[in-house]
Amino acid sequence: MERFDTAIIGTGPAGVSAAITLKIRNKKVLLIGDRELSRKLSQAHEINNYPGFPKIRGSELALALKKHLEELQIEITEAKVAAVYAMGKFFSIQTSKGDFEALSVIIASGVMQGKMLDGEEALVGRGVSYCATCDAPLYKGKEVIVAGYSDDSDEETEFLSEVASKVTYFKTGAGEEKKFADNVSVISEKPLKLEREGKTVRLFTDKGQYDADGVFILRESVSPGQLVPGLATEGPHIKVDRELKTSIKGLFACGDIAGKPYQYIKSAGEGNVAALSAVTYLAGLKE
Amino acid sequence: MERFDTAIIGTGPAGVSAAITLKIRNKKVLLIGDRELSRKLSQAHEINNYPGFPKIRGSELALALKKHLEELQIEITEAKVAAVYAMGKFFSIQTSKGDFEALSVIIASGVMQGKMLDGEEALVGRGVSYCATCDAPLYKGKEVIVAGYSDDSDEETEFLSEVASKVTYFKTGAGEEKKFADNVSVISEKPLKLEREGKTVRLFTDKGQYDADGVFILRESVSPGQLVPGLATEGPHIKVDRELKTSIKGLFACGDIAGKPYQYIKSAGEGNVAALSAVTYLAGLKE
Repeated sequence: MERFDTAIIGTGPAGVSAAITLKIRNKKVLLIGDRELSRKLSQAHEINNYPGFPKIRGSELALALKKHLEELQIEITEAKVAAVYAMGKFFSIQTSKGDFEALSVIIASGVMQGKMLDGEEALVGRGVSYCATCDAPLYKGKEVIVAGYSDDSDEETEFLSEVASKVTYFKTGAGEEKKFADNVSVISEKPLKLEREGKTVRLFTDKGQYDADGVFILRESVSPGQLVPGLATEGPHIKVDRELKTSIKGLFACGDIAGKPYQYIKSAGEGNVAALSAVTYLAGLKE
Repeated sequence: MERFDTAIIGTGPAGVSAAITLKIRNKKVLLIGDRELSRKLSQAHEINNYPGFPKIRGSELALALKKHLEELQIEITEAKVAAVYAMGKFFSIQTSKGDFEALSVIIASGVMQGKMLDGEEALVGRGVSYCATCDAPLYKGKEVIVAGYSDDSDEETEFLSEVASKVTYFKTGAGEEKKFADNVSVISEKPLKLEREGKTVRLFTDKGQYDADGVFILRESVSPGQLVPGLATEGPHIKVDRELKTSIKGLFACGDIAGKPYQYIKSAGEGNVAALSAVTYLAGLKE
């Protein structure tokens, strides 16, 4: 398998900045994210404190960042990352587009919006999943629940309906009405709590309760502890030092997921620092 | 005496970024520095990794930053700062234009270079560079000299050897023997003087003379000086935490003086964080 020097997860200002500096340092970079970079950035009305761009619309700054990537011929791999595993001498990155390997990883995935459901954390990997592409095969011919908070929840639900026998879809985001297959029921109640009883996972909403073989929780981003097993966190953030090192060697974090303030220029600055820390780490591996 | 909310010392990307964010937060800002912002920035050939500005000349980025300050009506007080004294409830800032008072201070003065070589100053931006990551691309396939005084000189030399056709490395610091690529010659003579002749830069050492297309001078830099009596330092840097607080309450530091890497985008990001930490500090004073 092709092995990258550094995999960067996230295409906001932090991930883009890290990719730019690593590319300039001649590293083989895998940049995983969205070709539109960052929804949060693109939707920002006006940004006043990204030095050099007075009063710029978020969509314009996103365009400037995209041009910078193009100028340096940095490509974006459009995928969702389900998990990152430290394998000793390298990292394995599980994504919706298959697995990748890299000697180092920079997490710049933004901070997870919203709270976890009651009981969710205890059931991760025991009936709770965050990636339809990755885990759907486990539920072939079975019944699943989807709690959909992300923009692509509809698509993921559609995919699950092709594999599972029955899909109960709690659609919480906005978005158009969509026609699903007959084995999908769309319910507009609010998911609150999860429990497990034998092989059954039970979801409690504000109005009732629902049983299934598994629950898919589809958020715009996952919490760092779920993404990387064993990673030290502080609330919703990954614990980092001034060099943006995490508790795992060769793994770095930057941008919103590395802590407040949630500011574009802070994220861009940290992307640069994380990239150069990765360069130092990679140099150390050679010796 | 007029008392400012925050005095910012330095007009490189860190100081400018801090001033922009503080102004947006409606703070009364004293920005002390140079109307031309930063010599180092203005003389930079080309900057490739300030996200949003691919391949920008240092002078152009400086111009963009100046326009940003003008847009927000932030003025620069042209002065040299001699000392900053913590007076308890405020700071007294002694400058060449008299004394000022501020409730908080952000030091963004950059890190001072050590003693320069004879003839070095005149060649900055004309064959003399201080950052391999920034300027290596200018010497693709060309010959360079490295005068390495810093801990990461080996790493930077290695990177240069990937880009340049030939690297003559004057290793002056301590450190282990390292194996470099075949196009690197390590020489243990003492660099003394620089001259330029046409397109060639000539380095005179205590034992001979060497020609190249460019010279990289990599210094650890010197101590931040006795700018603030009692301030905790780490080598040439001011000691800071992730929020860019120093050992003195109400005093923050950002940019090169707060530590490596010496990168424009890292400095701009830190200026923002220091500014928001000052905002939090100022809010606490009111209570």
